[in-house]
Amino acid sequence: MNEYEVIKKFFLPLSLKKDFSLNLDDDAALLPKKKQLIVGTDSIVEGDHFEKNEKNPLLIAKKLLRVNLSDLASMSADPFGYTLNLSLPNYKNKKKLINWIKLFAKGLKQDQSKYQIKLLGGDTVLTKGPLILSLTLFGYKNKKIIKRSDAKLDDDIYVTGNIGDSGIGYKILLKKLKLNNYLNNFYINRHKLPNPPVKFGKKLFLFANSATDISDGLLADLNNIITASKCGAIIMSENIPFSKETKSLIIKKKINIDYLFTCGEDYQLIFTANKNNSTKINSLAKKNSIKITKIGNIIKKRKLVILNKNNQELSFKSLGFKHF
Amino acid sequence: MNEYEVIKKFFLPLSLKKDFSLNLDDDAALLPKKKQLIVGTDSIVEGDHFEKNEKNPLLIAKKLLRVNLSDLASMSADPFGYTLNLSLPNYKNKKKLINWIKLFAKGLKQDQSKYQIKLLGGDTVLTKGPLILSLTLFGYKNKKIIKRSDAKLDDDIYVTGNIGDSGIGYKILLKKLKLNNYLNNFYINRHKLPNPPVKFGKKLFLFANSATDISDGLLADLNNIITASKCGAIIMSENIPFSKETKSLIIKKKINIDYLFTCGEDYQLIFTANKNNSTKINSLAKKNSIKITKIGNIIKKRKLVILNKNNQELSFKSLGFKHF
Repeated sequence: MNEYEVIKKFFLPLSLKKDFSLNLDDDAALLPKKKQLIVGTDSIVEGDHFEKNEKNPLLIAKKLLRVNLSDLASMSADPFGYTLNLSLPNYKNKKKLINWIKLFAKGLKQDQSKYQIKLLGGDTVLTKGPLILSLTLFGYKNKKIIKRSDAKLDDDIYVTGNIGDSGIGYKILLKKLKLNNYLNNFYINRHKLPNPPVKFGKKLFLFANSATDISDGLLADLNNIITASKCGAIIMSENIPFSKETKSLIIKKKINIDYLFTCGEDYQLIFTANKNNSTKINSLAKKNSIKITKIGNIIKKRKLVILNKNNQELSFKSLGFKHF
Repeated sequence: MNEYEVIKKFFLPLSLKKDFSLNLDDDAALLPKKKQLIVGTDSIVEGDHFEKNEKNPLLIAKKLLRVNLSDLASMSADPFGYTLNLSLPNYKNKKKLINWIKLFAKGLKQDQSKYQIKLLGGDTVLTKGPLILSLTLFGYKNKKIIKRSDAKLDDDIYVTGNIGDSGIGYKILLKKLKLNNYLNNFYINRHKLPNPPVKFGKKLFLFANSATDISDGLLADLNNIITASKCGAIIMSENIPFSKETKSLIIKKKINIDYLFTCGEDYQLIFTANKNNSTKINSLAKKNSIKITKIGNIIKKRKLVILNKNNQELSFKSLGFKHF
């Protein structure tokens, strides 16, 4: 099977209609013209965003799509298509390679129907090193785009979902933490298969002033918002939402709260909104079966303040994952 | 220097105006709406498209841009901006890493002014393995897009520039060929710094029926055209354009003609056009200081026929580089 045959067999069935993808037959693809487009791009790396020698390429495909869907959700865009830059494992056994591609494409297909998006084009290379997979996701702009830089004084700060589960899964994969089988699987699954609130994100433009997704860590990403918006934030550590599993680990002192605030890869949304929108926000969250939690407020002083239940300020060595 | 500071210092000066790039401050960027957009994406890999431990990241940046410019040129599009997926070398010495980024950004900057394009956004990761760098290039559609699939019966087949120089450079880097210093440098430079005919490509829509860029090898890429167009081609090996340096190597039997036809990475254009356009084509090539050569014709029979000077059909073991 040569590259052409692989594309026809596994990727052409995933592609956007011919007018745009040109049957994946050309050097480039066309983009729809009817609306303003938004583009985001994220890469994932073997051994970092997904497990070294991951046995199930289906999970890699889904994670690659979802980390990018998370970016567009945070801007309240409506995703429709993507291009791929795949580095494929350079297996000498070509059957093994084809099987890898087959499962990877299956993962794409499942999430394409879940999220209503299609493939536009891409490029493949082979690598002997760790896999690095990039995806560039296109969406339509909604009435408003939600940026990091538009947080307003006194805005409420909300997060969706729970914080830290993915980071605990990562620790388990690195063998830096060992729990029982049930919990190991629970957390590893959270790390391998994020579940960004894509539908809810599309509605952000109705109520949010600013937003970003939590990829580098709750504190680092909130810090991105206040830096871009030239303001500060005060959050109550007691209000940060954790899963019941994680609450129990905290009580048993099996996990440090600092780690949960900074470990990243949650792929949940953090957004700020005017206090007057709280009823609307809660009802939209309920409608979309999304957990949302108010964790604090935007303040004038350009500082990120984290208070414990006794109103004492907590200090953090680092705000979260910085690439270098 | 953290990631935020690196982006502000090295990449923000390269970015498209704030309305689109959002100051590289957000999870995604906006794309202009005024015209139909075309998108292409290509990755380059250390040790394959560029030398292992390449000392000059400026060259890597330029090659990454140019292989993508080559794709859009072949569709007769007008490039304006790009997103980047960078894997950066995971040097323990942070000064070395910052210096790598500085030189890489310098290469981008130089080619941005040469080709009149700007940065829209991107993502960075660190890797211990071979670097894999991806770029997604956006262009405006011209009056017509030139696809691979529209070659017409009896069309003339043209190529721009010379064939095989880059492939010879690759052989020299792999130490599979050793020439004198002058020639080593000449060919390595051709491999490291392709020079796709971007301006001429923008004019293809005026005269060409089909086109692609020569990345996988002259024969493989011509084969892509005839496969997509459901036709065949006949080319005269005597007409394939070589540099005077390569002609001399062929005479001295230092290099095999099969290799030159199939080695790829020329990043020149191969296009087909109606015979009646030959005057127009030659005059546009002259105006753009582009060497063009007619190498054959499109035929009905779905086969790629290569004839030598005695009109004998040559056979090739492989048509060129297939990724797997």
